[in-house]
Amino acid sequence: MAIRIGILGYGNLGRGVESAVLQNKDMELSAVFTRRNPESLHIKTKGVQVLHTDKISSMKDQIDVLILCGGSATDLPEQTPAYAEMFNVVDSFDTHAKIPEHFANVDSSAKKGNKVSIISCGWDPGMFSINRLYGNCILPEGKDYTFWGKGVSQGHSDAVRRIQGVADCRQYTIPVPEAVDTVRSGSNPELTTRQKHTRECFVVAKKDADLNQIEQEIKTMPNYFSDYDTTVHFISEEEMKRDHSGLPHGGCVIRTGVTGIEKEHKHIIEYNLSLDSNPEFTGSVICAYARAAYRLNQEGQAGCRTVFDIAPAYLSSKSPEELRAHLL
Amino acid sequence: MAIRIGILGYGNLGRGVESAVLQNKDMELSAVFTRRNPESLHIKTKGVQVLHTDKISSMKDQIDVLILCGGSATDLPEQTPAYAEMFNVVDSFDTHAKIPEHFANVDSSAKKGNKVSIISCGWDPGMFSINRLYGNCILPEGKDYTFWGKGVSQGHSDAVRRIQGVADCRQYTIPVPEAVDTVRSGSNPELTTRQKHTRECFVVAKKDADLNQIEQEIKTMPNYFSDYDTTVHFISEEEMKRDHSGLPHGGCVIRTGVTGIEKEHKHIIEYNLSLDSNPEFTGSVICAYARAAYRLNQEGQAGCRTVFDIAPAYLSSKSPEELRAHLL
Repeated sequence: MAIRIGILGYGNLGRGVESAVLQNKDMELSAVFTRRNPESLHIKTKGVQVLHTDKISSMKDQIDVLILCGGSATDLPEQTPAYAEMFNVVDSFDTHAKIPEHFANVDSSAKKGNKVSIISCGWDPGMFSINRLYGNCILPEGKDYTFWGKGVSQGHSDAVRRIQGVADCRQYTIPVPEAVDTVRSGSNPELTTRQKHTRECFVVAKKDADLNQIEQEIKTMPNYFSDYDTTVHFISEEEMKRDHSGLPHGGCVIRTGVTGIEKEHKHIIEYNLSLDSNPEFTGSVICAYARAAYRLNQEGQAGCRTVFDIAPAYLSSKSPEELRAHLL
Repeated sequence: MAIRIGILGYGNLGRGVESAVLQNKDMELSAVFTRRNPESLHIKTKGVQVLHTDKISSMKDQIDVLILCGGSATDLPEQTPAYAEMFNVVDSFDTHAKIPEHFANVDSSAKKGNKVSIISCGWDPGMFSINRLYGNCILPEGKDYTFWGKGVSQGHSDAVRRIQGVADCRQYTIPVPEAVDTVRSGSNPELTTRQKHTRECFVVAKKDADLNQIEQEIKTMPNYFSDYDTTVHFISEEEMKRDHSGLPHGGCVIRTGVTGIEKEHKHIIEYNLSLDSNPEFTGSVICAYARAAYRLNQEGQAGCRTVFDIAPAYLSSKSPEELRAHLL
């Protein structure tokens, strides 16, 4: 029998999860939940019901894993602990600083309900975290580097959209090629924020807006832009639609380290992602972990987990024998 | 208290493990075992005993994990099952086709002794296998590529050494750059053996040997060279010593796949290793898994495991809380 998936929240990530469920033969979509009017939603999978969030508890016996596709700022801190008692859940909580608190809340709730929760799934946190961990364990004397991009940062795009006179913005984070090359050479450089990434903004201004003023506000915005070299391009609404409608992203995690009695040998481990669609890739990672959550719970486990706690074999629909014979 | 490590076999890999143990603060080397005369061995770690293999069972209570550093052809198929009952063990068994049989033998022995064994640790099998598995689970509709090198293949070097007239050989496996670029472009090419790798041999010939004959024998050797474009260079013993004494290696695992309702988005996951010393890196991976073997056994587990079965957190000396706070 297929693993029955529920999706809560039908934005970019919810649609990415839906598309990933369709690619996994051992899963089926059971329902999509929304806080909007369910009739306003037109999902891609045929014959699947769209229900208001109010109805979630009535679907308790028809869903094996509920995937929470809300935002980390306000949705997930409420939703994940709330639903972790009723369902096996997976979320992509990505406020790094608040992970310990989120973990504790979800863990207590999941244990009460004898369910398994997996938080902070995706690629960062997620696959990038796993690669930082493996790299640190294999090369204990070394240094970590994470580069993001080239890709669209939703948070930075939103920050620019809040500036007066801005109608729309797409912000790209771009690793500085020379910085990446220096790291790959194994020379273990110390890099400042400015040396690692540049930022590029494509802005649609409102009629009669002060372009100079907008550009200055962007470039000096603390936390978001002031520590970076930022380029601002003003474009038309048509250009935005034509050239910047995708959500590509990616980046790399590099661990450099030394081994040998005299520390005479250098090693470089690099994990690199190049993604046409950030939400679809994130949704694909989440689906693999939904399988793990289901299987761990079937084995009788309960509580909160992260990607660090899940053995790779749990992500696969194949048997341990098949995996050993074909992928090891 | 530190995890007490025993090393069986003091060749390149044994020395690599010794060097890795010195880099892990929570481990200490307890003894090195050899089939040679123990007095002929001069190890790098001060104050550690070198014992004949005969004495292994007398050290049962002074070793937490025994690391088996023999070869996959004849040593490990005997040694791992033999010692898996007495010790937690880790090996780097790399005869892919015989892994299922080796697993079964080791599993039955480890269960008898209530110990944990981890087989086939290193980078391939090992880290490359893990990346093939993660890639397959995240992108179920896609294609796998593994490239090896540039690096020294011991098996191919040995094969050339067996040719009449050859005094020494170092064989490098080299990925074809155009093939790697095509894969990275996401175009999912079908590649033949010849299109993926070339081979380069540096040969020291014996006095009066027939160089043409040696070159022909290398290039036409079935399984090892006949399916590849191979270059042969004849060099002096001095050049061999000066330019080819290292054991560098590396390579990459690439998974390319598509997502989206119309399969319209491409994704590329690449894991890349660049290693100055193959045996020291392999030894470093093995040490991380030795920690996992010890901890799993402390938890009461028994039986054979592979890298697929070990959650990443078990490789680290840090607590789950520290890992979540700093690496997730």
